[in-house]
Amino acid sequence: MNTIPALPTTPLAVRTVEYVRACETESVANHSIRSYLFAELLAVHEGLRPSVDFDADLLFFACVLHDLGTSPAASGNQRFEVDGADLGAAFLTDNGVDTRRVDLVWEAIALHSSSGIAERRGTLAYLTRKGVALDFGAGSEFVTDTQADALHSGYPRLQMVTSLVDEIVRHAARSPHNAPRYTIAGELVRERDQDGHATTLEQAALTSRWGE
Amino acid sequence: MNTIPALPTTPLAVRTVEYVRACETESVANHSIRSYLFAELLAVHEGLRPSVDFDADLLFFACVLHDLGTSPAASGNQRFEVDGADLGAAFLTDNGVDTRRVDLVWEAIALHSSSGIAERRGTLAYLTRKGVALDFGAGSEFVTDTQADALHSGYPRLQMVTSLVDEIVRHAARSPHNAPRYTIAGELVRERDQDGHATTLEQAALTSRWGE
Repeated sequence: MNTIPALPTTPLAVRTVEYVRACETESVANHSIRSYLFAELLAVHEGLRPSVDFDADLLFFACVLHDLGTSPAASGNQRFEVDGADLGAAFLTDNGVDTRRVDLVWEAIALHSSSGIAERRGTLAYLTRKGVALDFGAGSEFVTDTQADALHSGYPRLQMVTSLVDEIVRHAARSPHNAPRYTIAGELVRERDQDGHATTLEQAALTSRWGE
Repeated sequence: MNTIPALPTTPLAVRTVEYVRACETESVANHSIRSYLFAELLAVHEGLRPSVDFDADLLFFACVLHDLGTSPAASGNQRFEVDGADLGAAFLTDNGVDTRRVDLVWEAIALHSSSGIAERRGTLAYLTRKGVALDFGAGSEFVTDTQADALHSGYPRLQMVTSLVDEIVRHAARSPHNAPRYTIAGELVRERDQDGHATTLEQAALTSRWGE
């Protein structure tokens, strides 16, 4: 298969993309949309069926909203994953999504950086985490070059990793609560403070399949 | 209040302690039991009521079983928090606890090191995380010296932090999957590899209220 999925066109899906584009840098917004497209490609690859094995609407919301915590809209008083989960949940609640489904999206967003745990909290959290990881190049062997090119041409990378690290570090600087030890924010701040060099995440991006 | 809670005496509670003592070092087992007692003290302090606001049996199971992933019984092929959640869940299932309650314990154990997330996944995960953190000295202002002394005399610390770090690093050495970046295991391994000094966690223990 060499095509890529289309974005959903429901009014709420359109509003979701508009909201994210209004809050986030273009680079982070594009990353969020690509994460959804990668997650959909992975679902097909693994034989996971929309409506049966996972809720495709919720996967769209979780992926597209997952980095809202890096945006100026965030409270800036808790780790960015949870800030993003709260903003995403508030947006969906305001738009009439019911509590149970909102909580599933909350969980998927909050856990998107929790390696080894998100993958065990149901298909939505699994696919969200994997979609995000795929946009860092992890596990992308099944994605064809044609698919990758289409995806990156529709939603350019724009130095995504450095842009995202910048935003996470900026969020961390807003409060001492935001970058606890043993979290991605805590380690990115430590690495940037330490030597002024590129973080491990940025170094890895240089040699990843998507080569930034 | 200057007394400390008693451990539950149901047959399954007794078996749980026996199981943990059979699997873990004395130091880690004592830490696990103290985590439960601290969690119970916190529940009282915060006015959280057993049976109404949280399930006291599940809190006991989650706290006492939370570090099983550091024991030789662990599969050694995933992060220790998840290894522990799997072992704890299997133990409870084998002892007739129903799936829904087992999943709540799984979640509380898997998230016990996830700062800022566990606190938002319901009272069980909240109290489990806080109970563990209290045994590192965090947020212990409400605990009286008499309570702390009773707790530590019943369940001595035995250099808990170094002992636990040793076990997490030992578990991490069993597979490259066990210590991903941005997890406690990943950072402890990095710190020990880097300079052979005490890890940040061990350094903090020296000046914590429980002074190791």
